[in-house]
Parts: sequence; C-alpha cells; structure tokens
Amino acid sequence: MTLHIYLSGEIHTDWRDQIIAGAADLDVVFSGPVTDHAASDDCGVAIMGAEAQKFWHDHKGAKLNAIRTRHGIETADIVVVRFGDQYKQWNAAFDAGYAAAMGKSLIVMHGPDHQHALKEVDAAALAVVETPQQVVDVLTYVLHGSLPDRQG
Amino acid sequence: MTLHIYLSGEIHTDWRDQIIAGAADLDVVFSGPVTDHAASDDCGVAIMGAEAQKFWHDHKGAKLNAIRTRHGIETADIVVVRFGDQYKQWNAAFDAGYAAAMGKSLIVMHGPDHQHALKEVDAAALAVVETPQQVVDVLTYVLHGSLPDRQG
Amino acid sequence: MTLHIYLSGEIHTDWRDQIIAGAADLDVVFSGPVTDHAASDDCGVAIMGAEAQKFWHDHKGAKLNAIRTRHGIETADIVVVRFGDQYKQWNAAFDAGYAAAMGKSLIVMHGPDHQHALKEVDAAALAVVETPQQVVDVLTYVLHGSLPDRQG
Amino acid sequence: MTLHIYLSGEIHTDWRDQIIAGAADLDVVFSGPVTDHAASDDCGVAIMGAEAQKFWHDHKGAKLNAIRTRHGIETADIVVVRFGDQYKQWNAAFDAGYAAAMGKSLIVMHGPDHQHALKEVDAAALAVVETPQQVVDVLTYVLHGSLPDRQG
Amino acid sequence: MTLHIYLSGEIHTDWRDQIIAGAADLDVVFSGPVTDHAASDDCGVAIMGAEAQKFWHDHKGAKLNAIRTRHGIETADIVVVRFGDQYKQWNAAFDAGYAAAMGKSLIVMHGPDHQHALKEVDAAALAVVETPQQVVDVLTYVLHGSLPDRQG
Amino acid sequence: MTLHIYLSGEIHTDWRDQIIAGAADLDVVFSGPVTDHAASDDCGVAIMGAEAQKFWHDHKGAKLNAIRTRHGIETADIVVVRFGDQYKQWNAAFDAGYAAAMGKSLIVMHGPDHQHALKEVDAAALAVVETPQQVVDVLTYVLHGSLPDRQG
Amino acid sequence: MTLHIYLSGEIHTDWRDQIIAGAADLDVVFSGPVTDHAASDDCGVAIMGAEAQKFWHDHKGAKLNAIRTRHGIETADIVVVRFGDQYKQWNAAFDAGYAAAMGKSLIVMHGPDHQHALKEVDAAALAVVETPQQVVDVLTYVLHGSLPDRQG
Amino acid sequence: MTLHIYLSGEIHTDWRDQIIAGAADLDVVFSGPVTDHAASDDCGVAIMGAEAQKFWHDHKGAKLNAIRTRHGIETADIVVVRFGDQYKQWNAAFDAGYAAAMGKSLIVMHGPDHQHALKEVDAAALAVVETPQQVVDVLTYVLHGSLPDRQG
Repeated sequence: MTLHIYLSGEIHTDWRDQIIAGAADLDVVFSGPVTDHAASDDCGVAIMGAEAQKFWHDHKGAKLNAIRTRHGIETADIVVVRFGDQYKQWNAAFDAGYAAAMGKSLIVMHGPDHQHALKEVDAAALAVVETPQQVVDVLTYVLHGSLPDRQG
Repeated sequence: MTLHIYLSGEIHTDWRDQIIAGAADLDVVFSGPVTDHAASDDCGVAIMGAEAQKFWHDHKGAKLNAIRTRHGIETADIVVVRFGDQYKQWNAAFDAGYAAAMGKSLIVMHGPDHQHALKEVDAAALAVVETPQQVVDVLTYVLHGSLPDRQG
Repeated sequence: MTLHIYLSGEIHTDWRDQIIAGAADLDVVFSGPVTDHAASDDCGVAIMGAEAQKFWHDHKGAKLNAIRTRHGIETADIVVVRFGDQYKQWNAAFDAGYAAAMGKSLIVMHGPDHQHALKEVDAAALAVVETPQQVVDVLTYVLHGSLPDRQG
Repeated sequence: MTLHIYLSGEIHTDWRDQIIAGAADLDVVFSGPVTDHAASDDCGVAIMGAEAQKFWHDHKGAKLNAIRTRHGIETADIVVVRFGDQYKQWNAAFDAGYAAAMGKSLIVMHGPDHQHALKEVDAAALAVVETPQQVVDVLTYVLHGSLPDRQG
Repeated sequence: MTLHIYLSGEIHTDWRDQIIAGAADLDVVFSGPVTDHAASDDCGVAIMGAEAQKFWHDHKGAKLNAIRTRHGIETADIVVVRFGDQYKQWNAAFDAGYAAAMGKSLIVMHGPDHQHALKEVDAAALAVVETPQQVVDVLTYVLHGSLPDRQG
Repeated sequence: MTLHIYLSGEIHTDWRDQIIAGAADLDVVFSGPVTDHAASDDCGVAIMGAEAQKFWHDHKGAKLNAIRTRHGIETADIVVVRFGDQYKQWNAAFDAGYAAAMGKSLIVMHGPDHQHALKEVDAAALAVVETPQQVVDVLTYVLHGSLPDRQG
Repeated sequence: MTLHIYLSGEIHTDWRDQIIAGAADLDVVFSGPVTDHAASDDCGVAIMGAEAQKFWHDHKGAKLNAIRTRHGIETADIVVVRFGDQYKQWNAAFDAGYAAAMGKSLIVMHGPDHQHALKEVDAAALAVVETPQQVVDVLTYVLHGSLPDRQG
Repeated sequence: MTLHIYLSGEIHTDWRDQIIAGAADLDVVFSGPVTDHAASDDCGVAIMGAEAQKFWHDHKGAKLNAIRTRHGIETADIVVVRFGDQYKQWNAAFDAGYAAAMGKSLIVMHGPDHQHALKEVDAAALAVVETPQQVVDVLTYVLHGSLPDRQG
C-alpha cells in the first residue's frame, strides 16, 4: 500500500520538510504546492505576459497554480492542511473544503489558538494534530498499525 | 428557471438581507447557514449535552451546522461567498472550496483590500463582486439577460 | 427547504412515531423500511413463491426490501439510524455504511451502553443522540436555527 | 489481472492468515484494518493526546482507523467481510454497506447460525461463504476460471 | 413517496397495460419505450430523411429511440424488464445492463423456460417474477408494506 | 414526462422561436443562452466594472454567461446545438462537447455544407437535423411516439 | 498508451484467440469471462455448495461470474461484444448495456443477419464490425493511426 | 509526479512536436489524435467498409476516432487545445468542452485574432497561451515550480 499525501497550506516554515524526513522509511509519495512564494505569485505573468492590473496579475498566477494544486489533491489519498500563525491562509481552507467535497481523508494541523476559528474545518477532518511528528505518527499507524510508544 | 442560491460567509452585516430584498422579484430560492452567532456556536451542546473541553463543544456544533451547510451547498445552483473585514472566516473559504469541487457556480464578494489574499478563491469563481447590488445584478442577468442600465 | 429523512434501524419500539409526531410542524418528509416484522420477513415468498431453503426464503425477502430501503436512503438528505437493545441489527449498521458512502448526513441514535461497539458508526455521523426528542431538536435547528431553550 | 482485496471484519481468529496463505500463488494484493485490538482502540489518544471522556477517546481512534479502512475499501476490487461468533461487529456491517454503496464486489463469510440476521448483508453480496478456503476458491476461479475439483 | 417505473422490453402483449391498470391506486409514474412497432422502426427516416441502406435506416431510428429510452431509465427508480417468448430481445437485455450499471432497482419478468438463458440478468435483479400481477404486488409492497394476502 | 431542452448555438436567426412555437402543445421546458448579443458581450463589465483590456472585458462576460449556460446544460435532458452559416461558433461546439461529456442527449442542427466540419460533433449526437421543424418532430416523437405523417 | 480490452459474448468459437493473436504486437491487455462453459455454469455450487433448485444453482454461478465480469468491464477502456449465431446471448447484450452506461467505448461484432435485432446495441457502439481481423484493425488504428492498407 | 497531457486541435503545423521536444526532460506523457489527415478521414470505411453517402463515410470515421480521442482526454491530467488560423476546428472546441465538463485542467493556445471568438473556451481554461514554448513553460512550472527566467 502506497499512500499519496498532499501537503497543503502554510509555506513559510519547514513543516513539509519535517514530515518528509520523518516519513523517509514509509511507503508514501508527497506532493504539494509551489512553495517559492515569489514564483508562486508571479508565475502567471512570467509565462503568459504582464498585466497592468494587480487583480489579473494575481488571477493568472492563481489559475496556473491551480493546475498543480488540483492535480495534487485529486490524486491524493490523504490531504494534510497546515494553518500557521500569520496571514489569512484562505487558500488553505479552500483546499480543505475542496478535499472534503472529494471525499479525501483530511488531516488538519494547527496550534491551539486557532481551534475555534477552524472548528468547521476540523469537523471535516479525520485527524486534528499540532505537530509534523504527529502527522508522521498518523501515517506510520495507517500504514503499519504501530503506535509511537511501540516504536521505541 | 428557478435558481437555488446558497449565501455563505460573513454573518455580522446585513448583506444577505440586501440581496434577498433586491432579488424579491426574481425566481430564486435562498438558503444559508444559521446566522444567530450564539446559537451556531452552542447548538451541539444545547441539544446533545455539555462538553468540558472547548474543542468538543465546538466540534459537536460544527458537525451539527454541517448538516445544514452541506445540504444548502449541495442543492444550490449558485454559491455566493462573502468575506468581510474581520475574523479568519476559514469556514467561508472552506465552503468555497467545497462548492468548487462540486462544480457549483461560485460568486465571491469581498472588498478590494482582500484581493491578493483571496486570489485562489477568486480564480475558482465565475464572478467576483464587491456589493450585494452586484449579486442582484448578476442574478437578474442570469435569469433575464437584462443589464442594470436597461432596468432603469 | 424541505428535508427528506430516512429512519433506519430498530423496528420494535415507537421511536419513529415519536420523531414524526415531534416534527409535525417541520417541513420534513419521512421514509423508512417496512416495520411489520412478519411482512418484512415473508414478503419475498409471499409474492414470488415459496422456497424450501430458509436462506433463499430470506434472500428473496431481503432483496425485495432493498428496493424500498435503497430508494429511501438514496433520496434522503439525512439518514437517522437507531440501534436498540436487542438483536444483532446488522442491517442498521449496513444502512449506516451505505448512507455514509453516499455522503448522506448521518444521525446515529443509541443508548450509552452501545457507545464503544458503535464507535466506527458514530465516527461517520454528524450527530450522535440518545432520544427521539433530540432528533426532533436537530431537525428543528437545521431547518430554523432555533434551539430547544429558545422554543419554550 | 491483479485483484485488490480488502479483508474486513472479525479480528480474533486467523481467517485472514488462512486466506492469504491459501492465495499465495494468486495475483492478489490484500489489505485490511489494523488487527492489533489494543492499538486499534487507543491509536487516537496515543498520537493526538488523551481524552477524559471514553466517547472522545473512541471517537479519535475510530476516525484515525477510518483513514486506513476507507482507503482499503475504496481501492479494493473485492471486499470480503467476515462475521464471527462474538461481539456486535457493527463495524463489519458498516464496512459491508459502505462497500456495497461504492459498487464493490462483496463476499460475506459467516456461519449458518447468523444467516437470518445477515440476510440484508448477504443479499448485497456476490458470494456468501463459510470458510477461508471458499474465499480462496472464489479468488482462484475469478482469476483463472478453474474450480476446486480441477485443481487436485 | 412517488416511484418512477420504466417498463422495458417486449412490446407485443399487453403486459404494460396490465401493470398500469393493477397499479391504478398506487403513487407511481410509468414510462416506457414507444410501443408502436412500425413507428419505432421508421422514426429516424420519417423525421430525418430516407436511407438507402437498412443499417443506417435502423441506426437513425435506434438513436432517436435512445433519447426516450435513456431518459426513461435515467429518471426511473425501478426498471422492469420483460422478456417474451419470441424474438432476440437484445434491446431488453441491453436496457437491463444499462439500468444495472446505473444502480437502478431491477425487476425482471419472464417465463420459466428462459430461466437459464437469463441467469446473468436475473442475478442483477432485486426481484424476478413471471406475471404482471407480481409486479403490481411488488410495487404495492414497496410503497405500502402490505402483502397480497392482506389486501383481500 | 416533462422534457427540459437547452437550445445552444447560433443567436442571429429565429430558430429558437420556431422550435418554441412548434412545440407549444408539448410538455417541454426550454432554456438557452442570453441571445441579446450586445448584452451578452458586455454583461461582465456592465455589472462588475470596466476593463482596459479587451481580453479581460470578454473574460468577465464569458464567465458570467457561463453561470447561465452551465445551469441550462446541466439541468437539461436534451441539448440542441445549432450551427449557422456565419462566425466561428466555437462556443456552440464547446457546449456540444460539454453536453456530450455529461451524457446528455444531443441533437445537432446544421445545413449540409457543414457536414464534414461537424462530423465529430454529429458522431456524438443522437439526432442530426437541418430544420427547427425536425427538432419539433423529434420532441413530439420522443414524448408521444407519433410521427409527422400521423399528425396530419 | 496501453489499452485494456474486455472481450464479452459468445464463447463457442475461437474469435477471442484470433483477436489476441492478431494483436500480439500491440500494447493491449485483454480480459474476458470464463470461457469454460461447464465451469461457468457450475462454479457457484462447486465452491459454495449444491442447490436443489436449478434457479439457485444458476443464480449462485451467475453472481460469482459477475465478480469477474464487472471487474473486467469496469477496468476496460474498450469493450468488444460478439454475438454469434446461436443461443439467446442475453448476457452479451446485458454486458453491452452495462458498458454503455459506464461510458466505455463499445465495439460490437456480429454477422449481417443480426443487424436489425441488434440495432439498439449497434447504436450505442463506436464501431460495428463482422470479423476478428476488423477488431485488430480498429485497435491498431486507435493505437498507431495506421490503416490496414498501410500495414502491408 | 507524472503528468498526462492530451494535445487536441489543429493538425497542420508542428506545434505538437515543438511541445514534445521542449518537454523532453519533463516527467510527462503525451497523447493526441491521429494527425495523418487522410487516415483520420478515411479510417472508418477503410476498416469497416465503404459508404455511398459522405455523411456515413464521415460518421464511421468520426466514431472510430472518438475511441482514441475520448481515451486520451479521459486519462489526461491536462488537455491542451490549439486553434490555428484555418478551418472551422469545431472538433477542437468540442474537445475543450468535453474536457471542461470532466474537470480536466484546460490550456488553450491561439493567436490574438481569435481572442473574442474563443472567449467562452478561454473562460473555462486555467491557462491561455500563444506559443508551444509557453506550454512547455507551464508544464515546467507545474512540475518543478521553476520559471523561465530562472532556468537560464
């Protein structure tokens, strides 16, 4: 059993790297959005030509990024969505809704201070965690049935 | 042709009332979430019993609200999602993603200051507007093919 | 908004009647299995001819009942599944799984003693309740946004 | 032709091992739930933190197990569900309903004493058997068209 | 509960009329193919122009009839397929397969002499009957839970 | 049986009016795109604000029109697509492909000179006609089984 | 591009072998029903126990065969259905309807004498042929774009 | 991540070759229609027999080509549709509509003079480009997150 995991959400800390490193021995394939913030913002105009209006500049980029994002979510077995401390992160919540409507297994990761604001997103999840290690523990359990205490 | 419209998002201003009043002569049926904030927060424990932990208090409520929310989105032809000036509003973005994945026609309403943060949500929409009157104009055009100038 | 509700499960107490009576003022349409136990057991052979083997006697009946049951679940917005104190009730759990896979909103009703045995079924539900009145309260809230305390 | 088989249900006897051993020469890939009872019960709190209430302890675990269970059923060609002599086994019947609604080929395995109680589940199955050897015979026939007598 | 029933198959006896008359008091809506044999055969060329080749003459008609047939099956809750004593009736078996793949409840009606030849079709059905009265009995039971003996 | 018909394609002749008039006695409900060419071109900017670039002017309008177009096609039983003598009419072919992928019954109307260029579209259709009267004849036959000769 | 082809229908001549031999150099994977007539008829009782009634003898076998048949059709890109000169072959027409409803590309093979009786099945096909060589030619063209004349 | 790309549309210039050459180092698999114009036009009659009527000559060929075309679109992650300067190209627009209805990521390629006529097609696309190099740039970005400037 190979699990395909899409890692959505916050792109300013190394949580993806931590999960990928922690899951190095697992039969998992990770995907995710482009995490180079500048490239992600400018990709549309860089390839398809400049726009005078910021709205269309953003629009072209968001659509281009959607090719990758939707492919990642649609081919995933599990979608992990991380909410960080900063920014609106509406795209993360959008991805969570998109994944939920497609029947994907949803894991939401966030700190306790966002608990109330994320209650609708958490309610659609099969696991709500706080740390990358917990995501690794979830994947390990799903694949092997072994729990952290028993791995020691 | 009757259009079913789900009005998702911000619940602290009267934007829903404005749209409903403006569309009084149109063949539309509106639905939306429970907009009584206190009832929405406490519905789970009020009906199914108190919880000591805030997380489960919220969880019970969010799931109960999901019965209404999902029914509304799934039976809608058009989903309008409004983002206001305050709060995280992750449930609004979640609804937008949920609606997009189901192939619903999406109309997003927000002020210009949220344009960059909402670019992924806007990119999934068939119309991006700022005011309730514009939503009424869109519905009028979709149903009758008439534009605002011609209504005068 | 009219809600279609399928009432699945235990057929030996009057829980369906209590819900239907309690929801008399709501815009709901109820359906459910044939609750005449003898008719339900014998319908297949009564219409399509006797069987020497009990297995095929039951088989004919179960398939005939499935015409009604599947129609009820497939056209429902909400599926309520009640587990009573007696019998195996595997058909109730089967209905719950069937409804869950179709994305129906699931409400599970059972006493506290069945909590551990039903944890997988409860985990797929949007509401877990113990009494018919709570089902009525849930439906009232979903339709009107009003909570029991506020109805008094 | 590789067949993917999900083995659902009773976890206290070695029926899965018997099927897997008997099918050693077949082009099949098996999956199933975590069969370590203690790990399965406690996985949620072991990874995501303790709960004071047994309901939420179970809830966290059941949802976490659902990540594995749903993946197994959704990617299976055939779902085998075994009902043993003990316990309520509502999760087995839930899995059967879930698989049936997804159009999976369903094989149900149980002793003759459960025949009446399982009639609705059996009615949704393409094969009803009593022993692991019969499951192996079914898989052998489906893959190679050869019957037990001819294998001797 | 209104049931939509599509009556497929043999068009040379009055079985449809018998069912419709017998179900006069039931909340059912019947549909079916065009039963005027000559019109059904010639409809394509009559409307869209003559064809020199019999194959294309038939082809135009079969496609035109498919507009009605598919609409009837797709909007039906129950598809009844009758096999008579004459002709190949491959369109009846095609309809049965089409209905089965769409998850429709299938009732097959035929005499005992066709039992072996129809075993695959019968295996996909929820009821196998011989007479129009049995179809009426099935519909009565599905709608009201009452059996023939009890109607007397 | 009520048939819902979407009338797609060419908007410069009165073919829609002819069909609607001819079908006045049939149980059909027609829908179609906005046929006011100027309104259709300018609807986006008229409601949502002017654009300096013609591409975005058109883009806003095309998306807004898609709300109506997709609703019409998705709720239709039959999609009629007319190709006229002028213009590229790529939106008509796009609608035909969209309808075909959704499994809608497709009727294509065009003159003989477009036969070769439309062969892929015609190949996906259940009827290929040249005149509005033929569409009326098709609808009459689908609903009543009567052919033109017999109506005289 | 690998094409998966399901070969349904008549099992008394060597048409499958001819196609498989003719397609030896193509990137295709073939599947089909069990073609050992005796095994196919008796598989149910051979594995799951004898039945006194021929109907249930056949029923058990037909359901068991359906595990293979449905898997084959559901995983196929192209379904070829062959109608021979003998027998009712209703299972072949059933498979054709099943495949059509799932949107599979359908190739029907039969002699000219069956043309009128198969008009509805042919109308759902993308190719109607008479010989195994034509099926090979179709597959060759679909994969390589080369026509028979050019292969010489 | 391997991306499957279907290249639809114009077959008279070497745009497909340019994209394939430009993407030589990417993890992509390309498919497309038969681009030998004569073979594409005559394939139906060459394999299945001559037709006296041009309509049926074309019809047989168009259906045969649809086996390849639909397989290509249905298995693609991304569908690129190119509109050239000549011909009606309704099949290209049909493919675009077909792909859009299936939720495929759509990239449309055309010169600026077709912008207004293609506005509905462009509105359904996630990227609108003019050159093969831009398609390569889009694929490179989707797979690696790198932009053209950064590749130098």
